Amino acid sequence: MRIYNFSAGPSTLPETVLRQAQEELLDFNGTGMSITEISHRAGAYMEINTEAQENLRRLMAIPDDYYVLFVQGGASQQFAAVPLNLLGGSGRADYLLTGNFATKAYEEAARYGDVAAVASSADKNYTYIPDLSTVPFRPDTDYVHFTHNNTIFGTRFAELPQVASELACDMSSSILSEVVDVSRFGVIYAGAQKNVAPAGLTIVIVKKSLVDGRKPLDICPTMLKYATQAKADSLYNTPNCFAVYIANLVFRHLLEQGGVAGMEKINREKAQLLYDYIDDSGFYTNSVEKKYRSRMNVTFFCKNKDLDAAFAKQAAQNGIASIKGHRMVGGMRASIYNAMPIEGVKHLIGFMQKFAAENKNA
Amino acid sequence: MRIYNFSAGPSTLPETVLRQAQEELLDFNGTGMSITEISHRAGAYMEINTEAQENLRRLMAIPDDYYVLFVQGGASQQFAAVPLNLLGGSGRADYLLTGNFATKAYEEAARYGDVAAVASSADKNYTYIPDLSTVPFRPDTDYVHFTHNNTIFGTRFAELPQVASELACDMSSSILSEVVDVSRFGVIYAGAQKNVAPAGLTIVIVKKSLVDGRKPLDICPTMLKYATQAKADSLYNTPNCFAVYIANLVFRHLLEQGGVAGMEKINREKAQLLYDYIDDSGFYTNSVEKKYRSRMNVTFFCKNKDLDAAFAKQAAQNGIASIKGHRMVGGMRASIYNAMPIEGVKHLIGFMQKFAAENKNA
Repeated sequence: MRIYNFSAGPSTLPETVLRQAQEELLDFNGTGMSITEISHRAGAYMEINTEAQENLRRLMAIPDDYYVLFVQGGASQQFAAVPLNLLGGSGRADYLLTGNFATKAYEEAARYGDVAAVASSADKNYTYIPDLSTVPFRPDTDYVHFTHNNTIFGTRFAELPQVASELACDMSSSILSEVVDVSRFGVIYAGAQKNVAPAGLTIVIVKKSLVDGRKPLDICPTMLKYATQAKADSLYNTPNCFAVYIANLVFRHLLEQGGVAGMEKINREKAQLLYDYIDDSGFYTNSVEKKYRSRMNVTFFCKNKDLDAAFAKQAAQNGIASIKGHRMVGGMRASIYNAMPIEGVKHLIGFMQKFAAENKNA
Repeated sequence: MRIYNFSAGPSTLPETVLRQAQEELLDFNGTGMSITEISHRAGAYMEINTEAQENLRRLMAIPDDYYVLFVQGGASQQFAAVPLNLLGGSGRADYLLTGNFATKAYEEAARYGDVAAVASSADKNYTYIPDLSTVPFRPDTDYVHFTHNNTIFGTRFAELPQVASELACDMSSSILSEVVDVSRFGVIYAGAQKNVAPAGLTIVIVKKSLVDGRKPLDICPTMLKYATQAKADSLYNTPNCFAVYIANLVFRHLLEQGGVAGMEKINREKAQLLYDYIDDSGFYTNSVEKKYRSRMNVTFFCKNKDLDAAFAKQAAQNGIASIKGHRMVGGMRASIYNAMPIEGVKHLIGFMQKFAAENKNA
């Protein structure tokens, strides 16, 4: 009944997690209430809030001098929250424009301080990441912002910027998919709807010194201040309890599956299978510089672009959902987050082979 | 197995809605995907987004010159969004301080303009609503803000302020529980987790002229601007799809149950049953002025306050959850939103009678 869902977000979730959620949807843990009905101040929920934080800390080896926050509003809201919280130092920040959301983040921050776009890959429709060794980072910025994985364009930073400033990173489409050294970041934020949970939950991992030791801009709304949720253990107001609950089930599932290192191994394998097939096919193509290819979002086209629409349509008839590329890129995009099993990638490749054989003379 | 859940929020939901959500949690409408996994740009979700807006318009008879928005962040985030969107006129607003959240809304707004607390019921721990005929409303304010129903203190505005300014109203704990004339309001906002849906969804109903005809303050974050979601039909970024989906099931359920007028009739009956019993019991007491008693949140105490803790504890052993009062009030609070059946209120009264009989000499 379940199909392979390659949506870029909201995205496929582990079936075992959904089955558990289904089973206990009317009676969570013997309370006689749904998890959606339990007060966020009740023990049953507060235990989830705590366990989810602890599990995420274990999975990502988050140091003790970082806060883990569960907030709302998506990465789009963090585009404002990051400058409003962090521009209280020099008031300057540098941004790397490697895609649509990176650019939106820059435009929002530019409303609040001396913010520079120090590099961009717009010249080639974001099919690469600028060479970081040549980027004119400015001295004494409050932070340098980048988007670790560009969901729409299928690119990924192969290395982290080497700067003295704090790193602020949108990790929405790569969080928990590969091992990262959290201690290199000032703040990591991620909409949960790609690799973690249903939509409506945003994870923020922020160095405590940036919250306790740096004053947000005076105009920052209370709900956007990191200190608000840090002081309240993410319970300042009613959180998206259902999404935190599912996130925690996903975290447990990942811990059982070998943690992030285990996921990275499988994710590398999944991406390599798909890119290798595309490169060898003679029928499909991917336009991203190999070094910067995303492991989460694999964009591809039929070499004969007239076939793209037929591909997406026939894929849908073959148990493959949401394979159509973003309108800014066209073609196809296979989002192969943690919850996409390798069988799903093999199923997709099988269909690609069949489609290529049937259309080789088109 | 299910118990009667009197939580103030997140709160009980209709069992039929939860059962439908449970049944289709792994396969929504034959898509082979969970509703939590479907792209918000896919037809299957966009239909829900549209139907939910239409159903809410029908239920509340929302005029065409109002936008209906589904956003994130809770009422707490609207405490900032309201002034940031609406103080672009005279820059002045009046607030009525009738409780904890009303006061928080005022404090947030005061950061952004010339904002006055024109009345307060703090002198009697918010057990009444100030006489609106004596409130010194200022002329030429951009809006007058009030909290229709005060969840913590169990009070309710018996009538709407009569002012020339726009009315801005936090309706989190009373939306859809009684008939209101939307055309009298500039903006109504409500966290959905009390009367509508799981937490993480905020409903905003705002006059189009206040969005299209009034410039937000320059400092307003993009995600807090009403125009952002109004222009994008609440799909500017990924919404809380699961909560919108449940909200729509609840809307359908309400339409089947006679709409808001039908709910109001039952809600009046539920509240009267409970208040009548409290008033007649000789054992329990409610401290709210009768005219201003909430129909949604019924606060009460044992006259011998030493018994309150035992009441809450024994209630929990008798299928009654989350009856303990808020720490700012003490005692007990029965939140009897739309989804609490009258049988639940009768069950509570039955327990109250038993407890009173057993403790009459304590």
